[in-house]
Amino acid sequence: MKVYLDNAATTAMAPEVVEAMVPVMSDLYGNPSSTHHKGRETRSHLEMARKKIAKHLNCSPMELFFTSGGTEADNMAIQCSVRDHGVRRIITSALEHHAVLHTVDHLGEAGAVSVEHVRIDEKGHVDLGHLEALLKEEAPKTLVTLMHANNEIGNLLPLFEVGELCRAHNALFHSDTVQSMAHYRFDLANTPVDFITCAAHKFHGPKGTGFLYIRKGLAQEPFIYGGAQERNMRGGTENVYGIVGLAKAMELAYEDIEGHRAHVESLKRRMIDGLTAGIEGVRFNGDSANLDRSLYTVLNVCLPENEASSMLLFNLDILGICVSGGSACSSGSNVGSHVLSAIGSDPKRPAVRFSFSRYTTEEEVDYALNELIRLYQD
Amino acid sequence: MKVYLDNAATTAMAPEVVEAMVPVMSDLYGNPSSTHHKGRETRSHLEMARKKIAKHLNCSPMELFFTSGGTEADNMAIQCSVRDHGVRRIITSALEHHAVLHTVDHLGEAGAVSVEHVRIDEKGHVDLGHLEALLKEEAPKTLVTLMHANNEIGNLLPLFEVGELCRAHNALFHSDTVQSMAHYRFDLANTPVDFITCAAHKFHGPKGTGFLYIRKGLAQEPFIYGGAQERNMRGGTENVYGIVGLAKAMELAYEDIEGHRAHVESLKRRMIDGLTAGIEGVRFNGDSANLDRSLYTVLNVCLPENEASSMLLFNLDILGICVSGGSACSSGSNVGSHVLSAIGSDPKRPAVRFSFSRYTTEEEVDYALNELIRLYQD
Repeated sequence: MKVYLDNAATTAMAPEVVEAMVPVMSDLYGNPSSTHHKGRETRSHLEMARKKIAKHLNCSPMELFFTSGGTEADNMAIQCSVRDHGVRRIITSALEHHAVLHTVDHLGEAGAVSVEHVRIDEKGHVDLGHLEALLKEEAPKTLVTLMHANNEIGNLLPLFEVGELCRAHNALFHSDTVQSMAHYRFDLANTPVDFITCAAHKFHGPKGTGFLYIRKGLAQEPFIYGGAQERNMRGGTENVYGIVGLAKAMELAYEDIEGHRAHVESLKRRMIDGLTAGIEGVRFNGDSANLDRSLYTVLNVCLPENEASSMLLFNLDILGICVSGGSACSSGSNVGSHVLSAIGSDPKRPAVRFSFSRYTTEEEVDYALNELIRLYQD
Repeated sequence: MKVYLDNAATTAMAPEVVEAMVPVMSDLYGNPSSTHHKGRETRSHLEMARKKIAKHLNCSPMELFFTSGGTEADNMAIQCSVRDHGVRRIITSALEHHAVLHTVDHLGEAGAVSVEHVRIDEKGHVDLGHLEALLKEEAPKTLVTLMHANNEIGNLLPLFEVGELCRAHNALFHSDTVQSMAHYRFDLANTPVDFITCAAHKFHGPKGTGFLYIRKGLAQEPFIYGGAQERNMRGGTENVYGIVGLAKAMELAYEDIEGHRAHVESLKRRMIDGLTAGIEGVRFNGDSANLDRSLYTVLNVCLPENEASSMLLFNLDILGICVSGGSACSSGSNVGSHVLSAIGSDPKRPAVRFSFSRYTTEEEVDYALNELIRLYQD
């Protein structure tokens, strides 16, 4: 049996998304910047996609800028904030995705900003009291960049609350929403956030496309200089088929998001219950077993150390089970997980991240569960 | 009749490219960074694509870095040269693509580099004597960025000669090869160029993918920070279907490049001869009528001014003919062509860029030719 439980890494494209993209690939080849009919028909599909997405997120189409994915969008938000909005201090956390972490590190090392790391509690949640204290400090223009849902342990940030804190202290607020986009509803007109990001391939859309939402009024210069695409904000001929696929994937996600969530949450519960009953000493990293404060698609399991554990991922892979590993270990190595390390997870215990999608079945979860338990019994 | 003669803007995807991409979209959904079997199978397709492309260009696969297209690749080459290779002066021309021009302008305005513009002759060719004089000046580390083939007028740069000049004077050399890639053969192991760029959609591949070639030894930091993709040089999950499509499009291009060239060149000649015979006072912008020194895919026509000329593109579009316009006019406006303006083209004469592909037929060229002549006779 083949079981794909690595949906936080990437998802299978929905067949409806492929179906929506293929005719665009075959026929709609005009450049959306061309003024002739082949250009205009492509542009109309591009702008229709933008409108659809904006409607789902309750924002203006003018606030959405298509990019090559979440990583570019994160880079654009952070780097352009420093260059164009006078940001001289960045508040972030040690748990951010590398797209944020490495961008901030670079800006810090280049002397463009000072960097503050907000404290994280033992469960991996941002210490809001510390964030407020940092924001209250006498400091230059500040950008807060904190992810909405952690890609490894699934912890959720109270987006609204953090946004209100930022607003109260005149700080800009960027949130990497790559893991939560199209898994939760967003009401951007009523959420105090300045920049959020999207990667289509995290919700059954195509790789290589995403967007940056920039709140109206935050005019900035391009991150990638070039033609007048994206209202002069992002040079480069648009990945039209990808963008059409993104819009379709979002439509599919939001058409029954409560149903998808209920289904996936029941799988996650099943996994938590099964592992707790089947493997003595199992724990869950971060707050991922807390359904109220973590992404319903992610469960990060902290397994006991035994003979099986060193070959765990290898053995699961042989059994056809795709999951992500991760460990807090290997000081000096670049293969350990910076997230598990930051929350003080025991480096000797192997970590397995299961991540589900609306396509995941109970049968698949049971197979993975039983095989993992069996590996620990052998 | 519908005639698409705007192939320098973008090309129709080859049916074989769509065919190569669809199975990847449907089945190969793993993240190439994942170590399990779904990740590994995707990675093998990604690396196979890289190897194929490297073979066509006679370079190492390690010298190719996939990007979201030519514009990102140009930005990466230029911005990283300044940040990582100590470049403090850039020599460029007024005829470059906006991906280069605006990037260089930004770096100049930010005070990161001084910018020199090499002289252009009346046909739009780079004055190599002036380039050599600039390179001979006592100056800080220099990057020369000059495009291989101009996207508007088609002029070709003697890539080898310019590269030798740069090498002799210890300057880095970047060339935007977006218009010539997969239309000409490249032997990168034996060409003195440090960075060249590619956008797949200019040769019947998909939009949203391309690459930057970086000569071995020029280690640099990422332009887009994030995960360890592209050997730590470009964060973001790879657009795998796009990259597979890119490799397929390149394979198709190089499998009979001499045949394609002969076919397209004959169409260009036919257009030159037909227009010269049919429209009194017709001229050709830049050196685009000179088959030895211009891109065989591009012909930029400088038409006489008459009553028809103001509505020319509109009328051609109504007749089903897709071409690009462009004029040197409109001082202070951003719609004029910076290229035509830089070569001193008469702003009152309308310019039409015809650009052909291997799919273009004689019949299509004749239709466009005859309709254009008719518009001038009415």
